[in-house]
Amino acid sequence: MRNIDEDTITQAVLESMDGCRNPRLLTVMTSLVQHLHAFAREVKLTEDEWFTAIRFLTDVGHITDDKRQEFVLLSDTLGLSMLVTTQNNKKPAACTEATVLGPFFVDGAPEYQNGDDVSNGAVGAPCFVQGQIRGVDGKPVANASIDVWQSDEDGFYDVQKTTEDVGDMVHSARGKLRSLADGRFHFRSILAEAYPIPHDGPVGKMLDALGRHPWRPAHLHFWIKAPGYDTLITHVFRDGDQYLDSDAVFGVRSNLVVEWVKHGPGIAPDGSVMTTPFYTLDYDFVLNQQEAAA
Amino acid sequence: MRNIDEDTITQAVLESMDGCRNPRLLTVMTSLVQHLHAFAREVKLTEDEWFTAIRFLTDVGHITDDKRQEFVLLSDTLGLSMLVTTQNNKKPAACTEATVLGPFFVDGAPEYQNGDDVSNGAVGAPCFVQGQIRGVDGKPVANASIDVWQSDEDGFYDVQKTTEDVGDMVHSARGKLRSLADGRFHFRSILAEAYPIPHDGPVGKMLDALGRHPWRPAHLHFWIKAPGYDTLITHVFRDGDQYLDSDAVFGVRSNLVVEWVKHGPGIAPDGSVMTTPFYTLDYDFVLNQQEAAA
Repeated sequence: MRNIDEDTITQAVLESMDGCRNPRLLTVMTSLVQHLHAFAREVKLTEDEWFTAIRFLTDVGHITDDKRQEFVLLSDTLGLSMLVTTQNNKKPAACTEATVLGPFFVDGAPEYQNGDDVSNGAVGAPCFVQGQIRGVDGKPVANASIDVWQSDEDGFYDVQKTTEDVGDMVHSARGKLRSLADGRFHFRSILAEAYPIPHDGPVGKMLDALGRHPWRPAHLHFWIKAPGYDTLITHVFRDGDQYLDSDAVFGVRSNLVVEWVKHGPGIAPDGSVMTTPFYTLDYDFVLNQQEAAA
Repeated sequence: MRNIDEDTITQAVLESMDGCRNPRLLTVMTSLVQHLHAFAREVKLTEDEWFTAIRFLTDVGHITDDKRQEFVLLSDTLGLSMLVTTQNNKKPAACTEATVLGPFFVDGAPEYQNGDDVSNGAVGAPCFVQGQIRGVDGKPVANASIDVWQSDEDGFYDVQKTTEDVGDMVHSARGKLRSLADGRFHFRSILAEAYPIPHDGPVGKMLDALGRHPWRPAHLHFWIKAPGYDTLITHVFRDGDQYLDSDAVFGVRSNLVVEWVKHGPGIAPDGSVMTTPFYTLDYDFVLNQQEAAA
């Protein structure tokens, strides 16, 4: 510890943690320090680059608030979120795959009944969504809790609208409902559109410097919970979207991509008469059963 | 890009940067992504741990302001700062070694003449500092710019005192002077004492969880610049300090540790009569000569 140089520093840091009484924290921090140092050595990080990184992280911290989580965007755009999601959600091939939560989930969304319109003022082409929730054994999952949320036709989620725009927070294109006795659910919303992740901050500057765009393909978020089943956080993507092959947050999995069928004016699935074109999305979710407790 | 899983994600992120037109940025980010992903795989980072990390970084960002740089503290306590410092400051063995800048440097410190007292109200035992600045060829370096800064006897730097404490910012135990024609410098200050890095924030919590203390051994900072020589950022440490073997930021190098000699009341090096004990510190700095431009 009195002869710290580029060769001895890593071991010195690891030894400083000898008194850690949390074995998992010690494992995580040991690996973190080794990889952080290996990175700095591999690229021979300069003092100017180190200071640029400090300023970048400071900017990320300062733009982050209750409504904007730039560290999540950073994790998402570097693929860390999707890596953590996939390695923690391995399940049988028949199950619906998970993808990233993203930064726009809001706890405590309004509750709706099946058949309700969750758009609540969000603007976009009408879209009627239905499906069934099943276990891998094929049995319907009744009374599952289903959170749905999505952007409007301009690509904005409700939480991105400032209080200047909407006064107090209004939940729109966002809601919570429950599956019926046969595992089925159905609700009305709007057509999801591709949108750029918030890119007027440091992560946007990073993407620009890397020659990357900030767009995500159109998708509808689902968070499904039911006792006895693994919780599923995922999206359903719109087939044909131009960004399916270059999602800024690397969230696309091929079996989450489905056709959102366009219909001319006529009778909607809920029996209402539509005078404008509308869309339908049919998608079933298969949940992994939890192993019975011993 | 449509079949992202834990095996394909890293390559997908690397390919997304194909359009980067800054080769150095591409090199740095490629290595960063590879090590970040390797870390997450190696420890099989869980979703809860990922979220804990997001909250930790958010807290680090939110406590950081003009006067407190928690990201620098984080880098310092993980040994990254010292690694970057050492790998960018390799020089002949005869040269004075560099160490971390730390978070308490302030640009635009008041200018002093040799012989002045830079403490400017900071409280501590008087300390008379002198030395010479030379090149590796042994020649004195005249008119070198010398920034010095240190904590007071309570372990605080001037910038850590809030405006409530001191009204407008007063620079104390901090100053800038120049070496004389013979390369020598001398000034009066106070005795540096060991102090804990700011540990009432997220980095302090991290150290606590790791079983680490936040203390640094007593030291006096120097930043020395002279045309034709490599800039030197370093400290001089006080021999005998109990934290020399466990510096919280891993900054100690053995040839920066020197005796700060204690004297009873009597005549100080500047000729003044001291009625209380005082210290003297003599330390010479050897700068690396820059290679002549081609």
